[in-house]
Amino acid sequence: MPITDSSINEPRKDYSISELEEKAKEMRAYSMIALTSAGSGHTGGSLSIMDIAAALYLKVATHDPVNPGWDGRDRIFWSAGHKAPALYVALATSGYFPVEEVMKLRKLGSGFEGHPNRLKLPGVELSSGSLGHGLGVAIGSALDSRLNNSDNHVYCIMGDGEHNEGSVWEAIMSAAHYRLDNLIAVIDKNNLQIDGPTDEIMCLSSLKNKYESFCWNVIEIDGHNMKEIVSALEKAREFKGAPTAIIAKTVKGKGVSYAENMVCYHGISPKDGCIGKESLDQALEDIGASGFTKEKVNGLLKIASDRQKEIDKKIQNKISGFSRNYWWNSTDNMKSVMESTRIGFGRAIKELGADLNTVALGCDLSDSIKISSFYKDNPERKNRFFSMGIAEANATLVASGLAKEGKLAFMGSFGVFSTGRNWEQLRTTVAYNKFNVKVTAAHGGISVGPDGATHQSLEEIALINYIPDMILTVPCDSFETERMTKALALIDGPAVIRYARESTAVVTNSDTPFKFGEALVIRYRGERENFSDAFQWHIGSQYEPEGEDVSIIACGPMVPEAMRAAWILKEEFGIDTRIINVHTIKPLDKGTIIKAAEDTNAIITCEEHQKGGFGNIIAGAVCALKDYNSPVVMDMIGVEDRFGESGQPWELLIEHGLIAENIAKKARELIEKKK
Amino acid sequence: MPITDSSINEPRKDYSISELEEKAKEMRAYSMIALTSAGSGHTGGSLSIMDIAAALYLKVATHDPVNPGWDGRDRIFWSAGHKAPALYVALATSGYFPVEEVMKLRKLGSGFEGHPNRLKLPGVELSSGSLGHGLGVAIGSALDSRLNNSDNHVYCIMGDGEHNEGSVWEAIMSAAHYRLDNLIAVIDKNNLQIDGPTDEIMCLSSLKNKYESFCWNVIEIDGHNMKEIVSALEKAREFKGAPTAIIAKTVKGKGVSYAENMVCYHGISPKDGCIGKESLDQALEDIGASGFTKEKVNGLLKIASDRQKEIDKKIQNKISGFSRNYWWNSTDNMKSVMESTRIGFGRAIKELGADLNTVALGCDLSDSIKISSFYKDNPERKNRFFSMGIAEANATLVASGLAKEGKLAFMGSFGVFSTGRNWEQLRTTVAYNKFNVKVTAAHGGISVGPDGATHQSLEEIALINYIPDMILTVPCDSFETERMTKALALIDGPAVIRYARESTAVVTNSDTPFKFGEALVIRYRGERENFSDAFQWHIGSQYEPEGEDVSIIACGPMVPEAMRAAWILKEEFGIDTRIINVHTIKPLDKGTIIKAAEDTNAIITCEEHQKGGFGNIIAGAVCALKDYNSPVVMDMIGVEDRFGESGQPWELLIEHGLIAENIAKKARELIEKKK
Repeated sequence: MPITDSSINEPRKDYSISELEEKAKEMRAYSMIALTSAGSGHTGGSLSIMDIAAALYLKVATHDPVNPGWDGRDRIFWSAGHKAPALYVALATSGYFPVEEVMKLRKLGSGFEGHPNRLKLPGVELSSGSLGHGLGVAIGSALDSRLNNSDNHVYCIMGDGEHNEGSVWEAIMSAAHYRLDNLIAVIDKNNLQIDGPTDEIMCLSSLKNKYESFCWNVIEIDGHNMKEIVSALEKAREFKGAPTAIIAKTVKGKGVSYAENMVCYHGISPKDGCIGKESLDQALEDIGASGFTKEKVNGLLKIASDRQKEIDKKIQNKISGFSRNYWWNSTDNMKSVMESTRIGFGRAIKELGADLNTVALGCDLSDSIKISSFYKDNPERKNRFFSMGIAEANATLVASGLAKEGKLAFMGSFGVFSTGRNWEQLRTTVAYNKFNVKVTAAHGGISVGPDGATHQSLEEIALINYIPDMILTVPCDSFETERMTKALALIDGPAVIRYARESTAVVTNSDTPFKFGEALVIRYRGERENFSDAFQWHIGSQYEPEGEDVSIIACGPMVPEAMRAAWILKEEFGIDTRIINVHTIKPLDKGTIIKAAEDTNAIITCEEHQKGGFGNIIAGAVCALKDYNSPVVMDMIGVEDRFGESGQPWELLIEHGLIAENIAKKARELIEKKK
Repeated sequence: MPITDSSINEPRKDYSISELEEKAKEMRAYSMIALTSAGSGHTGGSLSIMDIAAALYLKVATHDPVNPGWDGRDRIFWSAGHKAPALYVALATSGYFPVEEVMKLRKLGSGFEGHPNRLKLPGVELSSGSLGHGLGVAIGSALDSRLNNSDNHVYCIMGDGEHNEGSVWEAIMSAAHYRLDNLIAVIDKNNLQIDGPTDEIMCLSSLKNKYESFCWNVIEIDGHNMKEIVSALEKAREFKGAPTAIIAKTVKGKGVSYAENMVCYHGISPKDGCIGKESLDQALEDIGASGFTKEKVNGLLKIASDRQKEIDKKIQNKISGFSRNYWWNSTDNMKSVMESTRIGFGRAIKELGADLNTVALGCDLSDSIKISSFYKDNPERKNRFFSMGIAEANATLVASGLAKEGKLAFMGSFGVFSTGRNWEQLRTTVAYNKFNVKVTAAHGGISVGPDGATHQSLEEIALINYIPDMILTVPCDSFETERMTKALALIDGPAVIRYARESTAVVTNSDTPFKFGEALVIRYRGERENFSDAFQWHIGSQYEPEGEDVSIIACGPMVPEAMRAAWILKEEFGIDTRIINVHTIKPLDKGTIIKAAEDTNAIITCEEHQKGGFGNIIAGAVCALKDYNSPVVMDMIGVEDRFGESGQPWELLIEHGLIAENIAKKARELIEKKK
């Protein structure tokens, strides 16, 4: 049954095939406007799944937008959560909320997260975004239906690329084991994933054979032929004794000329562009949905821009409060180059790749995390770069095998996947075996931005610090990341390097002191033309105390924020600050930390991480070693035990208080406490 | 080429089929003697793989026991690390070390770990034991061989059950992607796993079809027909263009009448027994290897018992040093019942299972972790118990789906698998969605004993504490575990409960105060007939200070040790101790902890965990909130940033200082520091 009035169990509206085709066009148009407004997002997959989304939500699935929690509804799980724009417009078109709301896509606080959050929007069955999760959840839901003798159906929308993930095969196996014929997986087989064509990244052929060998019923269709889609979705409901996989051949970016079959359109909006002449007008013309007049489109775009203005105002209020503005590059002097730490990793891996003994492994995010710099300008190195697909556990194990045989193996992904999803492989195979595997934990922190909570890694320090024989480093800027990567290459053994996506201040250069395993003391010396020249750096053990009032102990890009806080504290309040850059968390330079505690008696820790992951390690060092007669007050800055969300990187940093202005405020409070 | 002299590249020795058959018998006999001496271990799989092990190590694989690191050797990875006894006798028979050494199996410090450790024995290519890791590592090794134009071969020995693990399918997919024809997987298909027959636990049929659909070459053989084994192993070396899977049909427990095809013989030695009339003599008679005279066998058994005597002596020396013996149940008074915390969980899940809304999911360790108590005496509940096989990621997701639909879902395994291997599923699907999933992290701590490091979970507190919306509990004894499990059932939302394998003192009962989220203060009141009666318990917030000298803040079974330390400290030195039982780590009862810091100015934290996972959380609480004028000295007891090892549970606890005697020693040092 289609969209249903659950109170009387009658259809609210039924659509003909041609009406569905028109609705799919409209949905594509709305998606493209929202994506363009957002300035980021997953265009390709949202367009390839759109016809299926229209058929499922408007025609085949039983659900009631007026009663989203209706027990008798079919469940639709989006395992491929990055196709959220398609989900949002499908829900809106079904009647869950006005489609105009979707224009707030990826904006701070809007609920229209980069990846869906079930707690923020009606009709969303699952907060998803990490690939390979949805089918297992759908199985749980289907088992529940069976326990309850419910005759509803459970759909799971998946990508082809995510079939790289082992958890998908675990799920496929278990669905067959339980002969879940109320479960229907719909696979949007557009043959492209982030790093390239699926066949090149991790060959899946033939997905049909694989599903059949796992004892599923399989239907193959053209995923853009509405009649075939509706027929397959309905036929699957009738099949008995096994779950059904509908493998839908689709075109990534379908309907928008410049996005069709373009690898680069996986994760960008037309605003970013990747071929140079993208426009929303072109997209809307290609799609050909009726009624999208200039006026209507401008009205929709205005909803987004108005929302952004509200956010800008709110955010601006959070960084004021001093006699002048100390924001990055907002003053005539104290200028800073901004560059993301991942760029530094890219430079290092490019250089290290010259050594024939170095290998690198990619997990389908190779450009994002800059590990592709290993071979980008040096195609002859491609035989030493191994594409592992979206399969971080296996990538970790394969890296281990290469390291075992003597290679220096770099493996990486976003931190949540390269320290979290593969945690047990890191612990038991990499660390317990002492293999020379270097793991890059990219996209650390909330500054990942609009992709939202699923992709914002905030737990790596806690995950890695307690694994024996691991090294854990969190360099403070792009240059130090480059330096640290090269330093790690010289150490035989497992190591993790955490770095970030967003551009942050470059505060070190080749003249800055650096010693692996030793923290650095940084002191503010007065305003200069360049921000970085305003500070003096010392190897921790060589620093002579100067009677500072407070210590700020930070890691990663929180170090430049701590430096900016020192500037504010001195200029506004005459307070002297000792900043400590803990670029190596494991092994920890306890001496420099204890000394800061003893000298200044007041410590603030700063981490772009769940609060305490770093801060508690510092607290442990301070508590365990300090002398009884040396009292210390302490405070911590970090993410306050909550998940992240979508928003612009700096909006999120400000929203979560991970900025100099907040550090300075806390420092003053701590100094008060000391008096 | 068989066993080779790598200096001249000539065979050292070649075996005929009948010689191999005889060697396999000998290897079985040695294994059974070692397993019997150890009193634990994996009998079933060691026997089912033995013929293959003999063929591979003695006939087909190229390797040189005199030069274990020889570059040109074939690599043999044991993904099924629990079959270590077979590996050890194969290596010994090949000449890597005297077979007599293997008799020290699973004994502290022997190197013959419950699961193999490559850093401790020559010839072991991989420290393994976590299923699903080996094939990925083998792929890395095979890729390295290709990079180096080496013509060696890479074998990977796998179980059938471990094909439940998604990481295996990631590996299978990637080996085909890279067309690794130098890779040969040998699958010991004995059709049984821990919880039962593979078809019932998680149906694999047909493994052949699955491998073929993943584009592998497949050979099926009788895994006990030496001719077929040798022929398949050799044929596989010739196949070009794809990796080969040899699916060997075997009998679990092969060769020993009472162990053949017995599910219960997966993970026990004949000493434990499961049918009641097992004996080593019977096993040796069944095997029929020549030369195993009574004298020879006794000599071998003596190697083991001598080793144990040495260990006993060494361990005894570590717990002396006071005026009398304070060990558990070693005095005329202060008697304690000993019961493992997992038993308490079993009682609770049995009771909770009466509610039709409760479901439970097993990951092939259901009896070990006591989640099988959900249905054991109540077979009508079996429809609400879901066997998920060795697939913790999927089990976590399926539990999420059931919870999503309103069920109270319990899911569990050993902590290293149920908080580590599935970490990202716990974070992003369970916690971010706020699903009512209760995760049991069993076998927490080093007291897991002879299985060794891979199975001793020492990181769960760090893994879980920094995930938003998670509850983390570590109850102190079996009764509190029962109580806590029931308390968690009443709270809607994600939670982890950590408990242990070994019997520890029962120190609480229904009269003991208990409040979820509030720590308990425990005070020693003088010796009594029963240990537990010697202590008085208080809800933290209701406790009135009594001028104690030191606080011991502990969680889990370290609480009874802390209590024993308080007994020692008072009786030996007149020192008064405030013990704090932090049964709920998240949310943390900061008030009770701060108060202890302020009142006693000296704190020791105790955790059966990597040191600091718990201790640093306490340090953070103390540092962040305490007043400037209240100095505190602090120390921590925990595992000192090293992996565990095989040994008897209490041997390991003593070896790692996780006992009252060591706590008391540290407490005295701290009190000195305070003076």
